[in-house]
Amino acid sequence: MMSAAVSPLAVPFPEMPPVAGVAFATAAAGIKYRDRRDVFLALFAEGTTVAGVFTTSKCPSAPVDWCRASLAGGSARALLVNSGNANAFTGKKGVETTTRQAALAAKVAGCRPDEVFLASTGVIGEPLDAAKFEAVLPETATRVAEGPWIDAARAIMTTDTFPKGATRRVRLGTAEVTINGIAKGAGMIAPDMATMLSFVATDAAIAAPVLQALLSKGVTGSFNAVTIDSDTSTSDTLLLFATGKAAGAETITDPADPRLADFAAALDAVLLDLAIQVARDGEGARKLIEVRVTGAVSDASAKRIALSIANSPLVKTAAAGEDANWGRVVMAVGKAGEPADRDRLSIAFGDTRVAFEGERDPAYSEDVASAYMKNQEIVITADIGLGAGTARVWTCDLTKEYVAINGDYRS
Amino acid sequence: MMSAAVSPLAVPFPEMPPVAGVAFATAAAGIKYRDRRDVFLALFAEGTTVAGVFTTSKCPSAPVDWCRASLAGGSARALLVNSGNANAFTGKKGVETTTRQAALAAKVAGCRPDEVFLASTGVIGEPLDAAKFEAVLPETATRVAEGPWIDAARAIMTTDTFPKGATRRVRLGTAEVTINGIAKGAGMIAPDMATMLSFVATDAAIAAPVLQALLSKGVTGSFNAVTIDSDTSTSDTLLLFATGKAAGAETITDPADPRLADFAAALDAVLLDLAIQVARDGEGARKLIEVRVTGAVSDASAKRIALSIANSPLVKTAAAGEDANWGRVVMAVGKAGEPADRDRLSIAFGDTRVAFEGERDPAYSEDVASAYMKNQEIVITADIGLGAGTARVWTCDLTKEYVAINGDYRS
Repeated sequence: MMSAAVSPLAVPFPEMPPVAGVAFATAAAGIKYRDRRDVFLALFAEGTTVAGVFTTSKCPSAPVDWCRASLAGGSARALLVNSGNANAFTGKKGVETTTRQAALAAKVAGCRPDEVFLASTGVIGEPLDAAKFEAVLPETATRVAEGPWIDAARAIMTTDTFPKGATRRVRLGTAEVTINGIAKGAGMIAPDMATMLSFVATDAAIAAPVLQALLSKGVTGSFNAVTIDSDTSTSDTLLLFATGKAAGAETITDPADPRLADFAAALDAVLLDLAIQVARDGEGARKLIEVRVTGAVSDASAKRIALSIANSPLVKTAAAGEDANWGRVVMAVGKAGEPADRDRLSIAFGDTRVAFEGERDPAYSEDVASAYMKNQEIVITADIGLGAGTARVWTCDLTKEYVAINGDYRS
Repeated sequence: MMSAAVSPLAVPFPEMPPVAGVAFATAAAGIKYRDRRDVFLALFAEGTTVAGVFTTSKCPSAPVDWCRASLAGGSARALLVNSGNANAFTGKKGVETTTRQAALAAKVAGCRPDEVFLASTGVIGEPLDAAKFEAVLPETATRVAEGPWIDAARAIMTTDTFPKGATRRVRLGTAEVTINGIAKGAGMIAPDMATMLSFVATDAAIAAPVLQALLSKGVTGSFNAVTIDSDTSTSDTLLLFATGKAAGAETITDPADPRLADFAAALDAVLLDLAIQVARDGEGARKLIEVRVTGAVSDASAKRIALSIANSPLVKTAAAGEDANWGRVVMAVGKAGEPADRDRLSIAFGDTRVAFEGERDPAYSEDVASAYMKNQEIVITADIGLGAGTARVWTCDLTKEYVAINGDYRS
């Protein structure tokens, strides 16, 4: 069952400029959906470098395996993405399909197959028919252009209720470069699973190992700090392409190059922007929740505590019910397994401190806290009181709509 | 908001015989509820030994701290339990309350305070007034009797929709002994948290260290194999008392004593019976789900995979929707972080194998699998195909009612 209405937390798609060295087009291949574009083909200029991060699942999809293998070369000339079928848990047939997809994309791009990157999202366990791509790709390749990016964002959607894009301009050495990104989020089409896909492209000139270091670092505070329901897809894929085609671009080959600082910050901003849009489009979401943890024994410990809070069904249903239920936050801190001392713990909803040093805050006003919970965007802060470790993660509330969307209710 | 209807998965309360050396009564102390008994006082014969296991939360309630300290003595003469207030996150006031409760119970039982065991469930962060116990306990102590156990099971309920009890008779050496247990489960009263409490008593004669070994072992496959929503209370408490008053009982002092085998099996059966009743009364539950994992690299690995499946909101919503969605089981196996090989994985719903060696089973009938999902009790089996490790865990489905109960929906 698809959720028809657009998320109340949706944000408008930004104006996205072209990225020099990137051209793309979309097509309707009829993989699962009728009357919508479900294929996204991007071609990259010669010399484009690539970095990627993928699902931690021990049962990854065939395209994830393909991308991991291709990443070793560090060079990218084509990206082929489809929605409607995840090509996951498809055995040898799935591997054959990726091989045929890559050969086909390599042919239209004029490159080697290991310069092709693949991603698929949709039904699991159904064979993905490579002939669908053979039918549309040669024609699609004749239409590639520098925009509009919203078309690409739409082609990769499954049950996302709005297309997701982010863009930044930043100086890198002597060049002014663009970073564009699109993402699809935790959508679900029964009997399938949520998958996060994101593709980011820049016209900066950055060697592949440096690009990988930037992406691996950037993902920690963004895509790896967002959770909808604690479930992890077999297909999660984030790819970053750098064409080097910005006017005046000089290639960065040293990850410690001081010229990278502003670029890294802009990349992080694009990734965080996209990741929060994913949380805004969580299934059934009506509230965006930011969990801030301070005072943990380390940043890693803070992150685990923050995820324990953000993944707690009891915290998330309380948010859905606009209930300032700090007892459930105490519970989630306690179950995280990280160092915590009940008698040093403080909790706030927004600016209202509800608990202090292991007890209800004497100054706490239930009315003020309850009024705050009516906001569409909620910040929950837990101060552990033990150290200097901090973390921020984002999630959404757990509503009856989440159950309806994912339960495919037949009653 | 309380759920009014009794769980469709409820089972009848068993006929429970007396346990020699155990006498108890219940009282209405008005801690939170009106017109219902919310206090349970049990008195144990001199010489009663005790064992316990508690929440792993780093923010445990004051009564949990009290019990942990008292367990060191190994001797129990009284148990005092209340519903309506958890005495959790109550700071120094909470500690003072447990001290006063224990002094009071010690007085009516004629024992030392460290022979008193305490448990509380209900509101978190609200001071628990010890005067409520002072008002009722002396009179309650005059009414203690050997039954009925259902009264005790009812007095400890919060949003449980049915009282939970289990009983077994078993031979231990020359004596015929009884094991009686009661439990309360994952109930929730906004703004409070779910808590599991269980109390088991036997008239066997077993030294405290042996009793602790039996309980710690027994809990692994029972209460530690049940999950409602992955959240862990600050107050979870399981206590086992052995009075030694069965006719002809000889004290067992060696954990390797071969006479213990049948007793251990009967104890495990009582614990499992109670634990499954907790899953049957999960908030909003309409289906009981048993997850079986076979072929993992170890039993511990199998347990982690089984819990990953049982805690997955996507698996649980699929069950609610009667959807034979094996892709979500693949996802949950993959995210468990345990050794798994996509191409050796097999999954079955009941007797219907839906996936085999990393692909949809060619013989799989969607109709048969879908029909199976309409049952009230569902078995999901995942064979990892790597080793001999096995595990079983139990959970319930994730329904709109769960969200309604825990979200205290105001709209």
